[in-house]
Amino acid sequence: MSSNPELNSFAQAIPLDKIRYDERGLVPAIVQDYLDGTVLMLAWMNRESLQKTLETGETWFWSRSRTELWHKGATSGHIQKVRSLRYDCDSDAILISAEQIGDIACHTGERSCFHREDGQIVPPPADTLSQLFAIISDRRDNPQEGSYTCKLLAGGDNKILKKIGEESAEVVMAFKDDEPDAIAGEVADLLYHTLVALAHHHVDLKDVYRKLQQRRR
Amino acid sequence: MSSNPELNSFAQAIPLDKIRYDERGLVPAIVQDYLDGTVLMLAWMNRESLQKTLETGETWFWSRSRTELWHKGATSGHIQKVRSLRYDCDSDAILISAEQIGDIACHTGERSCFHREDGQIVPPPADTLSQLFAIISDRRDNPQEGSYTCKLLAGGDNKILKKIGEESAEVVMAFKDDEPDAIAGEVADLLYHTLVALAHHHVDLKDVYRKLQQRRR
Repeated sequence: MSSNPELNSFAQAIPLDKIRYDERGLVPAIVQDYLDGTVLMLAWMNRESLQKTLETGETWFWSRSRTELWHKGATSGHIQKVRSLRYDCDSDAILISAEQIGDIACHTGERSCFHREDGQIVPPPADTLSQLFAIISDRRDNPQEGSYTCKLLAGGDNKILKKIGEESAEVVMAFKDDEPDAIAGEVADLLYHTLVALAHHHVDLKDVYRKLQQRRR
Repeated sequence: MSSNPELNSFAQAIPLDKIRYDERGLVPAIVQDYLDGTVLMLAWMNRESLQKTLETGETWFWSRSRTELWHKGATSGHIQKVRSLRYDCDSDAILISAEQIGDIACHTGERSCFHREDGQIVPPPADTLSQLFAIISDRRDNPQEGSYTCKLLAGGDNKILKKIGEESAEVVMAFKDDEPDAIAGEVADLLYHTLVALAHHHVDLKDVYRKLQQRRR
């Protein structure tokens, strides 16, 4: 066992002998980004790779094509630091929440292996705010006529930040009125305008998420 | 093909003949909540269930235990409405972003099949804000001595909303100073206090996400 208390907690997260490996001795493992919920990849584990993952706090898989144990990132440097592990109701699939070093999981250089839709390369789904932030950042880089987001961005700080002041006052009033639908709508407005300000200043929403995660520890 | 234009777009999302089914004719499919990125389940599809999923816009799987096609939610009512589909770099795994009707995917009644850690039942990982919101809601329902969140909640609207006013002013100043680290920190503070206010009023963060998703359409 590791002397790192956090790693010791992983050692117990998944009971190796309770997992139902298939006829090949394998179980599918999903790796998900701990910040925004993006599914980065699906790979296969045998008992030994699961054990090494629990022991080291980094992901190890079984390569079906090379028929060998595989320490993810050993060559590329894009290792995955495990934050938590879960197994499912049938004990035949594993879900790993991880910090992806370099923010690239796929051998193609894309962030996620799940980047193909209709033969096109598309960003993988993440949480709502991250999806919206990606759209706003795209509007910033590729302005579109008639887009409200583009108008805000063109107005710069004084236009965007004035909206944050207005929206935060409207949020306060909606809470005071205790109207659930108005609260959800006004909070949505405040979040949207805050994302526009982040995009305008080229500060990543993930940096905000990292601040929040650090405080949890 | 369906007369619903949105469903027609799914028909092309995944080329049925390009997917690499395994020796059993199956491919693993991950279902993820479209709002907060929670991984709800992993199940198996054959060519026919994938085709029915693309045609109907609801998930169909292949049950390995019952050896039959399975329309998820046909019995329980907990169907999954497909929002988007991706396949991975090796064309041997599928990722579906879906709206989970009833917010319950697992046959045990849990929201996600991935709810087991160390033999305990735990919430599945989601995005950072949703994780934090779950903790704050738990503090509301199970107050803890010395918790800052509990102190805020005990102070009610006047204490919580005053903080939203303060934090939004600090956000505006950080953007004006154009200091990336301060911006991330102040936005994190504003988001945290907004989540406390939502929890205090029993308004779900998912309702805010729904508002943002509706506006994208």
